[in-house]
Amino acid sequence: MLQAGFDIGGTNIAAGIVDEDAKLVLKRSIPFPAGEPYQVAVEALAQLLTEMTEELFVPVSSLASIGIAVPGSIDQASERVVHAYNLQFHDVPLRSALMGYFPSVPVFLANDANAAALAELYAGAFVGCKTAVLITLGTGIGGGLILGGRMFNGGLGNGVELGHMVLEHGGPLCTCGTRGCIEALCTATWLVQQGRKSLIEYPHAMIATKAGQVLSNVNAKLVIDCAKAGDAIAKDIFDRYVDQLGSALTSCFNLLDPEVIALGGGVSLAGEFLFSPLRENVKQKCFFKNCGKIVQAKLGNDAGIIGAAMLAKN
Amino acid sequence: MLQAGFDIGGTNIAAGIVDEDAKLVLKRSIPFPAGEPYQVAVEALAQLLTEMTEELFVPVSSLASIGIAVPGSIDQASERVVHAYNLQFHDVPLRSALMGYFPSVPVFLANDANAAALAELYAGAFVGCKTAVLITLGTGIGGGLILGGRMFNGGLGNGVELGHMVLEHGGPLCTCGTRGCIEALCTATWLVQQGRKSLIEYPHAMIATKAGQVLSNVNAKLVIDCAKAGDAIAKDIFDRYVDQLGSALTSCFNLLDPEVIALGGGVSLAGEFLFSPLRENVKQKCFFKNCGKIVQAKLGNDAGIIGAAMLAKN
Repeated sequence: MLQAGFDIGGTNIAAGIVDEDAKLVLKRSIPFPAGEPYQVAVEALAQLLTEMTEELFVPVSSLASIGIAVPGSIDQASERVVHAYNLQFHDVPLRSALMGYFPSVPVFLANDANAAALAELYAGAFVGCKTAVLITLGTGIGGGLILGGRMFNGGLGNGVELGHMVLEHGGPLCTCGTRGCIEALCTATWLVQQGRKSLIEYPHAMIATKAGQVLSNVNAKLVIDCAKAGDAIAKDIFDRYVDQLGSALTSCFNLLDPEVIALGGGVSLAGEFLFSPLRENVKQKCFFKNCGKIVQAKLGNDAGIIGAAMLAKN
Repeated sequence: MLQAGFDIGGTNIAAGIVDEDAKLVLKRSIPFPAGEPYQVAVEALAQLLTEMTEELFVPVSSLASIGIAVPGSIDQASERVVHAYNLQFHDVPLRSALMGYFPSVPVFLANDANAAALAELYAGAFVGCKTAVLITLGTGIGGGLILGGRMFNGGLGNGVELGHMVLEHGGPLCTCGTRGCIEALCTATWLVQQGRKSLIEYPHAMIATKAGQVLSNVNAKLVIDCAKAGDAIAKDIFDRYVDQLGSALTSCFNLLDPEVIALGGGVSLAGEFLFSPLRENVKQKCFFKNCGKIVQAKLGNDAGIIGAAMLAKN
């Protein structure tokens, strides 16, 4: 049986059809109809799915299930999107809206970070795990938990907001209004902020030179590349980043003692330049001598669609 | 059927016999034989249990199970105490040692904070919960998790070290060697340290006066009592404590979204003077508008023995 998964983002809607082993057999992407009523997005989903199934010579009704991952909070019954700020979806009955097009196929709804963790469980870094943590290091922090070998959506069904665990009590203000959240200290955004600050403080250092002294040219990759090239200013920023992220991972290890913590998102693409000092940092801080592994997430941008497609199995 | 539970502490061994509803029917306490080989403690346990069952006119062999809670780490097979520093137990085969006395009764072993969380699940603040967090605020921080309606001992079986989640990255040094752990900022010990510091800075304030300017007279209760009495110095210490603890609880709510967080230990006896501002603090910081409840743990000092007695049912 085939299953379909959508990963709705503020820029694009990604869609995939997977087989029983969570392997992608077909993948497509269309622009997200930003600024339109949600019904426009739902119609686009329905049309895209119809086209994809036609390409595979099967009717939509033959699909075992359809899953949708959204960057936001889902109600406890998994019927409605409570808030997905990037999509401007607020209290949207996404599940029933899509079922209106395909009444015979079960539709499932989940937060995108939860779906990504589920994808890693079925086909990525968490295969065979009972307890695992996924952290995506992007503009914000995404977090998904596997507990008891299943995707965890919070004890009360509110979801998992790992990025809003407090990492530095009294620290810098987070977008959520609280001080010192992981999201305020471990994102690509933090690297960009520090890189831009360095343009003012160190206008002749490598970051400033490579960015042509233009603030908007500074991105996380530039800071990391300069650190890799051995620039002291960039290296100092990156070392502080590793130390902060190391403390965040230490909190997760000491509370849940997971078998694996996987890191995804743009910053994780720094590879061993990140992972090697990070493992050393956590080893110094973690209470358990034999804590779990720290690895790169395996499924990258496909995690959302694969996880969405696997929601029926959770 | 009756079940027996032991809670071994560095000062006393508490023992209890409970019925099927986790109700204590008999309770005893003897001194812990500190400085002796572990076999001396095991013999004391065996003798105490024999006496208690005699008092109830039943043979030990009629017990459904015996549970032992220790303040330390347990191996993954729940056979041995890996480290219990207060007991000077290191790699002690506690389970088999006690089974040597009562071969027909199953013996179970657990960390004391885990056992306390289990007791709250069967007979206290967590009855009916699927996801719950117990935090004991004493000299150190104890932490126990209920996940999926069961006691959780860590994904790898290392246990739960909630007190060593990082709350203030780069903050004060913790006993574990890492900086800014919850245990460095939310214990009775922290209140005592701040109270003692105030003797130097504010020698004429209420804490100093009530302590007769003697450092060793300052304990957590004195600081809390002075704060309750309206002393500004003590109130400032207590407010900072609430703010730190509020951040710790926020981390737990945002990661696990538990139905309940229960606080036990000495500091929790401050009652509403603690709970009322703490709930307000968490409400300000928590990502979820409808996060779970914050309550006082119900079973107090009996939690360890009741939880130990219920281990067979987990």
